Amino acid sequence: MDALEQAKFDEQGLIPAIAQDFATGEVLMFAWMNKKSLLLTIEKQQAVYYSRSRKKLWFKGEESGHTQLIKEIYTDCDNDVILLKVEQVGGIACHTGRKSCFFQKLEYNNWKNTSKVIKDPKDIYG
Amino acid sequence: MDALEQAKFDEQGLIPAIAQDFATGEVLMFAWMNKKSLLLTIEKQQAVYYSRSRKKLWFKGEESGHTQLIKEIYTDCDNDVILLKVEQVGGIACHTGRKSCFFQKLEYNNWKNTSKVIKDPKDIYG
Repeated sequence: MDALEQAKFDEQGLIPAIAQDFATGEVLMFAWMNKKSLLLTIEKQQAVYYSRSRKKLWFKGEESGHTQLIKEIYTDCDNDVILLKVEQVGGIACHTGRKSCFFQKLEYNNWKNTSKVIKDPKDIYG
Repeated sequence: MDALEQAKFDEQGLIPAIAQDFATGEVLMFAWMNKKSLLLTIEKQQAVYYSRSRKKLWFKGEESGHTQLIKEIYTDCDNDVILLKVEQVGGIACHTGRKSCFFQKLEYNNWKNTSKVIKDPKDIYG
């Protein structure tokens, strides 16, 4: 049985995926994959997710150019989560123009913005 | 509105949570939280998840002693994922006795075990 067959997708046919910066270890984003997107990620060596809101494959960076080049792919002890270690092209993973999507830190019962916008989303998505 | 109210839980009342080693950046595990578990995590400053299989709160480390002490809590750009930066007590997050749950690396279409068991689960869970 190959690796793709061993991955466990949920009742919606999806598996959670975490993207982590290969060099710094920073967690960049969280998204979902279906079987096809995991297959394409492996084949292309670039992150391909599944957009639940748009109900279609999401070729990360197709609009922004901020693709994620695969360095390593892991799964967890239960084969039901994927961890991608990636090189983040452009140094921006987040649609807000920040490096990581996890820029809001809990401080005194508020989410405090801890990182600045590298590039204005208007300039990224035109 | 406080931080807990701003977190977005899905139709099952759950939010994905990623635990990352505060010191090394290693991604340790992925689990789910409901509102109560996120509240308890913040209050106790220890990771509390929600077990979907057991349908109840999961006080991480309650059996194993491998609690996760909270260093920082983040949410993402959409407020619908939680990232915990933790000190992993005992250096073991995974129920298999390994540091991280993400120990299976994709190599030539197979998941290859890349880390060794630190402590036999029989000795952890008795």
